Amino acid sequence: MSGMRPLEKLVTLTEALRAIDRASKPTDRTEEVPIWSAGGRVLAEDVKAGIAVPTFTKSAMDGYAVRSADVKSAGANNPAVLKITGKIFAGHVAKNVLKSGQCSEIATGGMLPDGADAVVKVEDTSANKRGSVSILLPVPKGENIIVAGSDIAKGARVASKGEFLYPGKVGAIAAIGVDSLRCYARPSVVVMPTGDEVIRPGEKLKPGQVYDVNTFTLKTAAQTFGAEVDVREIVDDSKESLIEAISFESADMIIFSGGSSVGEKDLIVDAVSELGDVIFHGVSIRPGKPTLLGKVGSSLVLGMPGHPTSCLSNAYIFLEPMITKIGRFPKQRRNTVVARLSAEAQLAEGRTTVLPVKLDGGKAVPVFKESSAITSMSNADGYVLVPPSGSRLRKGAAVTVTLF
Amino acid sequence: MSGMRPLEKLVTLTEALRAIDRASKPTDRTEEVPIWSAGGRVLAEDVKAGIAVPTFTKSAMDGYAVRSADVKSAGANNPAVLKITGKIFAGHVAKNVLKSGQCSEIATGGMLPDGADAVVKVEDTSANKRGSVSILLPVPKGENIIVAGSDIAKGARVASKGEFLYPGKVGAIAAIGVDSLRCYARPSVVVMPTGDEVIRPGEKLKPGQVYDVNTFTLKTAAQTFGAEVDVREIVDDSKESLIEAISFESADMIIFSGGSSVGEKDLIVDAVSELGDVIFHGVSIRPGKPTLLGKVGSSLVLGMPGHPTSCLSNAYIFLEPMITKIGRFPKQRRNTVVARLSAEAQLAEGRTTVLPVKLDGGKAVPVFKESSAITSMSNADGYVLVPPSGSRLRKGAAVTVTLF
Repeated sequence: MSGMRPLEKLVTLTEALRAIDRASKPTDRTEEVPIWSAGGRVLAEDVKAGIAVPTFTKSAMDGYAVRSADVKSAGANNPAVLKITGKIFAGHVAKNVLKSGQCSEIATGGMLPDGADAVVKVEDTSANKRGSVSILLPVPKGENIIVAGSDIAKGARVASKGEFLYPGKVGAIAAIGVDSLRCYARPSVVVMPTGDEVIRPGEKLKPGQVYDVNTFTLKTAAQTFGAEVDVREIVDDSKESLIEAISFESADMIIFSGGSSVGEKDLIVDAVSELGDVIFHGVSIRPGKPTLLGKVGSSLVLGMPGHPTSCLSNAYIFLEPMITKIGRFPKQRRNTVVARLSAEAQLAEGRTTVLPVKLDGGKAVPVFKESSAITSMSNADGYVLVPPSGSRLRKGAAVTVTLF
Repeated sequence: MSGMRPLEKLVTLTEALRAIDRASKPTDRTEEVPIWSAGGRVLAEDVKAGIAVPTFTKSAMDGYAVRSADVKSAGANNPAVLKITGKIFAGHVAKNVLKSGQCSEIATGGMLPDGADAVVKVEDTSANKRGSVSILLPVPKGENIIVAGSDIAKGARVASKGEFLYPGKVGAIAAIGVDSLRCYARPSVVVMPTGDEVIRPGEKLKPGQVYDVNTFTLKTAAQTFGAEVDVREIVDDSKESLIEAISFESADMIIFSGGSSVGEKDLIVDAVSELGDVIFHGVSIRPGKPTLLGKVGSSLVLGMPGHPTSCLSNAYIFLEPMITKIGRFPKQRRNTVVARLSAEAQLAEGRTTVLPVKLDGGKAVPVFKESSAITSMSNADGYVLVPPSGSRLRKGAAVTVTLF
């Protein structure tokens, strides 16, 4: 076709990832998030303790609050017999003051009464009749009690700006009574399917049409990586429609699923050039070569190949680091396993190869059919990233499989 | 206290996990899920292809559809000149029949016209004037085309009952036009905070009260593990209230965050015994000893220790495998790293120890303060599970850290 432009200069995977890293700016958008749904978010403020935790000195055990001096010679054959002068449940205020020879029943979490300086576990006592208890073991001062402020001092920083909110961190914030947090907004992703031939699952296929695959893999993947995803209607294959569609958006990322190849009707590169900048177009990787990174206004534009395997493979290789950086998420620590190839695998000579594999009995079975085949990826458990080298990887070679 | 009952028989961690595995039945509840939100769910049906993918033979490249016999002697110095008789875009129906000496411009995804049996890439051609093109390389039959059904044969099983829906699998299902899937329901978890002394973050503390921590760590953790979580109001510390609260529920799991210890007011074991069965009460682990597993009707009851660190540690050790099994999720492959301890760590002699650690410069720094301290876990990056052994682990010992 007269208008066809081959990809002229491929960037290497390393160059592409470096460009993505440079172009992806950690978000500054923040929003107030109730603590109920703050798990998995990233804090946009330091959280300081307005109270000490615990706020009062309390018992770590069910047992008896004592003056340690009263029980220092206690033993199984020489019990210290103490008069029970109170009963302190968690949530109650200890009102009595313990004098020598006295003790107070106390539940875990109960407030230590004045005068007491330790707690004897119930297991180390023996109940008597008539309001006294035999203590069978000595306890040092401070034993089995939790001193006010020992967990979190008043004014201490409980969590810092930029921290990822794992369950334990959410708990620590709850402990100081904070119920709403300023968090960074999740990266916003708009998926824009293109292609006159593409229709949505559930509709009826006409000759020449295909179901939209990439929108679904991209949405699922982007959500898994932590983004908030909006999907647009399928955009016409015309430069005008593309320009109009892009102009309307203000998301952190606009992803086109298809259309960044070299064909006459692949107009995304033209639309992006007209509205902003093309950062790269074409990466020395297989699958995934006809990938475009651009910038329009404050939105990054990622043009994905139309082939389902290339598109999904790109989601793991290119989209995940973008979302991680923009969302300020911890660098993903995707699981890997080392396995031996069950069969020889074809490589893209001189390019990086993304090799989808299935794990079977400890072996890595290559399942790549072709870039166009969705089953190349959908039957895989993960992929091997093979740097540019020869044209094949021998059967039995040890490979590192990155798991989905 | 007269009513106190020490934990009489601790089960080992192995016994506890075995009991959890036996008691946790994979869910049979299913629901219809639109493909838009099926990522991360587990299929409850086999999905078979009602159509072949692709439904028609198409081009894998932008280029020219040819009869391979016409170009078998083509070369840069000996181009095969073919007449362009058509132009086929993706989504259009190829109407012309290719005769010898003819070719058709074709875009990636375009339907191969009858008569053609291969596609020459645009890079291997040179455009001429007046409606012809020079082919500079021979192509074998079948080159650069995707044969109908080569990706997915009509009738083939695209995904199986029990499969976890990774992005690629969602894409494969979209490819055959299916827009709604029967999936297993997410395990349902009800978190029931207990304790007269416990109030919600955001409220004002009175003397003796503490903020609810465990509800937040449990909810966040259970959601991370794939469950659907409902949180109830704080339940009174009375057996009657507990019995009423439990009777009302039909969730897969009811979790009490506190109250399964041995104290007089720790009434969960009584309530569970009255309504159903206590499977175990007390595990030889630190933190996490006063843990209860029970069954009431079809609900499993998990009684968590009240101490925040014990409770959160239990979420990783006991709750995650329950949710994984009930939800039919793939066995979690939590990341681990091997590191050396930066300092000696105290162990619970004769018990399994869960040792929270922070990773710092490649070292594992023990951060355990005490079971009651939320900061024991909230400052950790993961934990080391140390089997029952001596009373300490020496500085410099190599440990496997399971990351959050």
